Amino acid sequence: MKSHNFYAGPSILPEFAVEETVKAIQNFAGTGLSLMSVSHRSKEFIAVMDEVQELFKELLKIPNGYSILFLGGGASTQFAMVPMNIMSKKAFYLDTGAWSTKAVKEAKAFGEVEVVTSKDKDFTYIPKDYTIPTDADFMHITSNNTVRGTAFHTDIDSPIPVVADMSSDIFSRPIDVSKYAIIYGGAQKNLAPSGVTFVIVKDSILGKMERHIPTMLNYETHIKKDSMFNTPPVVPIFAALQTLKWIKKNGGVEAMQKMNIEKSDLLYNEIDRNKLFRGTVAKEDRSLMNICFVMKDEYKELEGGFLKFATEKGMVGIKGHRSVGGFRASTYNALPKESVEALIAAMKEFEKIN
Amino acid sequence: MKSHNFYAGPSILPEFAVEETVKAIQNFAGTGLSLMSVSHRSKEFIAVMDEVQELFKELLKIPNGYSILFLGGGASTQFAMVPMNIMSKKAFYLDTGAWSTKAVKEAKAFGEVEVVTSKDKDFTYIPKDYTIPTDADFMHITSNNTVRGTAFHTDIDSPIPVVADMSSDIFSRPIDVSKYAIIYGGAQKNLAPSGVTFVIVKDSILGKMERHIPTMLNYETHIKKDSMFNTPPVVPIFAALQTLKWIKKNGGVEAMQKMNIEKSDLLYNEIDRNKLFRGTVAKEDRSLMNICFVMKDEYKELEGGFLKFATEKGMVGIKGHRSVGGFRASTYNALPKESVEALIAAMKEFEKIN
Repeated sequence: MKSHNFYAGPSILPEFAVEETVKAIQNFAGTGLSLMSVSHRSKEFIAVMDEVQELFKELLKIPNGYSILFLGGGASTQFAMVPMNIMSKKAFYLDTGAWSTKAVKEAKAFGEVEVVTSKDKDFTYIPKDYTIPTDADFMHITSNNTVRGTAFHTDIDSPIPVVADMSSDIFSRPIDVSKYAIIYGGAQKNLAPSGVTFVIVKDSILGKMERHIPTMLNYETHIKKDSMFNTPPVVPIFAALQTLKWIKKNGGVEAMQKMNIEKSDLLYNEIDRNKLFRGTVAKEDRSLMNICFVMKDEYKELEGGFLKFATEKGMVGIKGHRSVGGFRASTYNALPKESVEALIAAMKEFEKIN
Repeated sequence: MKSHNFYAGPSILPEFAVEETVKAIQNFAGTGLSLMSVSHRSKEFIAVMDEVQELFKELLKIPNGYSILFLGGGASTQFAMVPMNIMSKKAFYLDTGAWSTKAVKEAKAFGEVEVVTSKDKDFTYIPKDYTIPTDADFMHITSNNTVRGTAFHTDIDSPIPVVADMSSDIFSRPIDVSKYAIIYGGAQKNLAPSGVTFVIVKDSILGKMERHIPTMLNYETHIKKDSMFNTPPVVPIFAALQTLKWIKKNGGVEAMQKMNIEKSDLLYNEIDRNKLFRGTVAKEDRSLMNICFVMKDEYKELEGGFLKFATEKGMVGIKGHRSVGGFRASTYNALPKESVEALIAAMKEFEKIN
């Protein structure tokens, strides 16, 4: 039976990226050596590093004046690195739950943090009614909340620099990078296996802090050395390059967005139609990447039954995050439409027999 | 022609580890999914994480009271994390060059650092004549210096806690872990592809600091969550497990040490015998992992010639570190004896024609 991979992350990657990575682990760039065993300073890997940066620039139309970094430590390390590098006194955070909440916590160690939150409705929507404080050094958003299934669908016009955690929606839609000072994310959703963190940073925002910043936590360290100050995560970066090649071949982020809208529309329509289920997120803020739903109250006792039923039909990873419950189907770029259709078929069938 | 992989890191890994990783990327633990696309919270990956920790304990005979962590960010991030987590006022560092020097620099931001260095002789030996200051919170060593080719061959008896960067000699010989408070290292030499950093930490040394430690830089965060506070580097950790299985199957770290002595003796003997070459390191401090040598002064002009000659015979990665020059043959656990023999044959042949 075919598996349908709805994991929230690490999650499904294009078959092309998986196959090319396998080939390179067997024989990298004709060297006769494994990608796992090749120096990051070999000319063959330096070519990979150059190309992945070029494709980032091309696919996201990144303007001049930005650097693209590939670091370790995950987005969670960025929660501290961002304020450490660019927060003098005050920052403004939109707290849309989970990762945002953690980001707020880290920032508080570096100054005053003004927070607007959607906690009043259990993080089921994106705050819209707020004033951006112009005395803050930057504002921070989580553009797509993997746990709650909410998303910003447009780039924010802000009088202060915008920082975005795009771990789970990078390359899922076109963005206007010029509207951001920093975009960062763990790569393990739309880009690569876990172990690499991308950072797109506007060079001019850096170099203004008076505090001590440990060398590895200073963006300028990595900009100066082109992400080779220390040994970068070679295999995940190679895999990221393959994913970007696949995105380019398939029409770029515009085509990804079209497919993502199509797939998520199919599933949200079924959630809204099916008598057993309901979506958990305000309709206008629904994520294209992480589709959260629960059993309606009157069918609550069927939750375990549906999980078992769907699992038997090949669905993997549809259990909701442990802090939320219910179900979550992650529909990243690489998830084929047929997987969404298989889940919908299972929902329909389960409705019929209950 | 067969390639002989002498890269200093990322470097040669056991064929078994490479092959098993390939299989898992194609189909992980019978899930039908790629290791690159599987949640770190899947039961199959949790089993990997459990087993890799168990094998660390077993192979290094790690006593109770220690935690084993798998983090991102490389050993370079540890240079700051160590003092951040355990340095109140003062630390004592043995500076044996390169990485040690960088570690000293990071520690200085957190208090007074007393340093004993081998810089007077260009880091070609391990300092032996020093008194450990008992008022320091810990002492720090780089047990094997990848760049300079020096090594500590025994564990230090110290009145204060010992911290060791073992990036390039972990699992190359038995160690008495009870003599250390923290052992850390980038995994990309004897253990795994780049992207994961191991930390073996004595629990009782933690939790005493008053300074703010960002969540991701606090060892206690990762101990509490069993290295799953955030998404760990799944593929490198899986590969590390395969390397440890291979070490176990081949007799453990005692057998590794025996083979490493045999291989390095062969090569050092040839360096000492051959009229063209000389070793750069004091004999008693020569590394078993990174064998550094240069052309004798009178043959200096042959350096480029030998590099070309050896490269044509399949040697890869024998150019010395850019800060040192000459040659460096890294002879990690997984390097077969036949590669050392091939290099020696090339040295002999080059001697004959010059």
